[in-house]
Amino acid sequence: MRATVMYGAHDVRVETVPDARLVEPTDALVRVTWACICGSDLWPYNSMPPSETGNRMGHEFIGLVEAVGSAVRTVKKGDLVVAPFAWSDGTCEFCQRGLQTSCLRGGWWGGTTLDGGQGEAVRIPQADGTLVVLPVGPDHALMPSLLTLSDVMGTGHHAALAAQVKPGNAVAVVGDGAVGLCGVIAARRLGAEQIIMLGRHAARIALARAFGATDIVSERGDAAVERVRELTGGLGAHSVLECVGHAEAMRTALSITRAGGAVGRVGVPQENTIPNSQPAFFSNLTIAGGPAPVRAYIEQLMPDVLEGRIQPGRVFDRVTTIDGVPDGYRAMNDRQAIKVMIEF
Amino acid sequence: MRATVMYGAHDVRVETVPDARLVEPTDALVRVTWACICGSDLWPYNSMPPSETGNRMGHEFIGLVEAVGSAVRTVKKGDLVVAPFAWSDGTCEFCQRGLQTSCLRGGWWGGTTLDGGQGEAVRIPQADGTLVVLPVGPDHALMPSLLTLSDVMGTGHHAALAAQVKPGNAVAVVGDGAVGLCGVIAARRLGAEQIIMLGRHAARIALARAFGATDIVSERGDAAVERVRELTGGLGAHSVLECVGHAEAMRTALSITRAGGAVGRVGVPQENTIPNSQPAFFSNLTIAGGPAPVRAYIEQLMPDVLEGRIQPGRVFDRVTTIDGVPDGYRAMNDRQAIKVMIEF
Repeated sequence: MRATVMYGAHDVRVETVPDARLVEPTDALVRVTWACICGSDLWPYNSMPPSETGNRMGHEFIGLVEAVGSAVRTVKKGDLVVAPFAWSDGTCEFCQRGLQTSCLRGGWWGGTTLDGGQGEAVRIPQADGTLVVLPVGPDHALMPSLLTLSDVMGTGHHAALAAQVKPGNAVAVVGDGAVGLCGVIAARRLGAEQIIMLGRHAARIALARAFGATDIVSERGDAAVERVRELTGGLGAHSVLECVGHAEAMRTALSITRAGGAVGRVGVPQENTIPNSQPAFFSNLTIAGGPAPVRAYIEQLMPDVLEGRIQPGRVFDRVTTIDGVPDGYRAMNDRQAIKVMIEF
Repeated sequence: MRATVMYGAHDVRVETVPDARLVEPTDALVRVTWACICGSDLWPYNSMPPSETGNRMGHEFIGLVEAVGSAVRTVKKGDLVVAPFAWSDGTCEFCQRGLQTSCLRGGWWGGTTLDGGQGEAVRIPQADGTLVVLPVGPDHALMPSLLTLSDVMGTGHHAALAAQVKPGNAVAVVGDGAVGLCGVIAARRLGAEQIIMLGRHAARIALARAFGATDIVSERGDAAVERVRELTGGLGAHSVLECVGHAEAMRTALSITRAGGAVGRVGVPQENTIPNSQPAFFSNLTIAGGPAPVRAYIEQLMPDVLEGRIQPGRVFDRVTTIDGVPDGYRAMNDRQAIKVMIEF
């Protein structure tokens, strides 16, 4: 089968790899119909040291179940399923509490030992805990929005929950990528009254406004902090969604949070320290978040997608085939595309 | 009047200073009857650069109201009152939400412009918002426990709330000072099932056990982390109270927190970064806390003190007069005393 393999920074190839197949009785085999490229794929795209074996890529996909192991109970051949960006058994202490990204028997797609979503087929470990059956056919018009449930929509939702967004809140979103944009949707869905998007890119700003952003702050650094404070009566936002992962983004996020407020961080942190934590202490800020347990959110968010109340699929502004994946990485990295969808 | 003034590291003096007096119509004048020395006073005791003017010290005190300004409504001459470690107007947006340490018109005791609690009298700004009348006389046997409501008991309670302690939880406490010990009381009061105190000092361990600690971990560094994990089924504590303020204590706290759990930090941070924040991200840890809004907690905790359900006053293991304050600092700094009470 054909799949996407990253061999180092700016070196993404589509290659023939061994066919995906069932290994454990708890596995399913899924033929991928839709997948996409993630903003977090751009971190290794810019920094991965050269590798002889390469890493299989992709952690967001929808597909048709082609076969299941003897122990699988909740999905069957022919089901259309969406996979969250982490697989999980659904039964451990953490899965039961809705924190499937900490599953004791779970893990992450791709790398050197598992299939990735940016390929024709994927072996699904712990299929019962991992997969969610979609109640639509593979040609459904809402497929892009349903695909975002595998990561970015659930991740934006997680940021909003971690930032304790409540009805009437002033919310700020740091990061105008697909996750930040989905964070706008999530904040509005949770009842935020004011939603301030920090961004400068025209297409992204337009989408943020369409999703419910009430204010756009295009200044940088201290000027951005000043502007958010002006927009919030001098006090800062109750809830701030940090959807980037750089220390600078966290510094901005903490600087624009109102005393007693919360930063929900979902950008994969590129540094091992949180900066400016003394002022955050004196303001009693809460810092929360991490890899979103999107498995827990798929069922919560799906009705809103199916009934058209939210349209996170609008973050996809380019569709390609698997052969176009390397150029899709380039386009996202050059900020020519917000998020690239792959049609199989 | 006589008051405590710090002129630099290890240079604490008791001196004659101008008498405290009413300045604003919202002021009260309080004659101090009991005060104490705080673990946080030891930070400047070890690091304050030499100063010609010095800083007035002390932020925990009980006293008798001697006079009130014309605008004061809730306290009157003769009332016995306890003061929280920060003063606040009780009416601003933050006070109304119970975050009095962020009061828009509040502030901190002592320094170069206000009286401190380690002196014979204190001018109280915003007396209506700040002071709480005690329903007992000044010779009451519970005076030490009531005095802890000015800081350490409320601060331990704040750590427990920030760490999201819930009934049945496994809780760990980093820091065996008076705040950590009050954190044990608070965790037990909130229903924690397992309370692990990290400490090595015999008297503090004994008190921690008396307050409800179920396990003591006396190892250091990685061995301590390992031991806490063993005691919690390999998973770590749901809630960790960070009651020190050093980066190393935060590193330990984050390392012993269960995925999805929370660190409540109340130790005044001595560094401006939070370490090891990448693993904390991947485990979806929450970091919360700051200066405790003890003003909000005094009324919540007072019934438990008055009815003897909690005995935080046991953290005082030495009583002195104002002349003994410099030696009290030395004793606490040398860990010869847990917490020193001052009788006027």
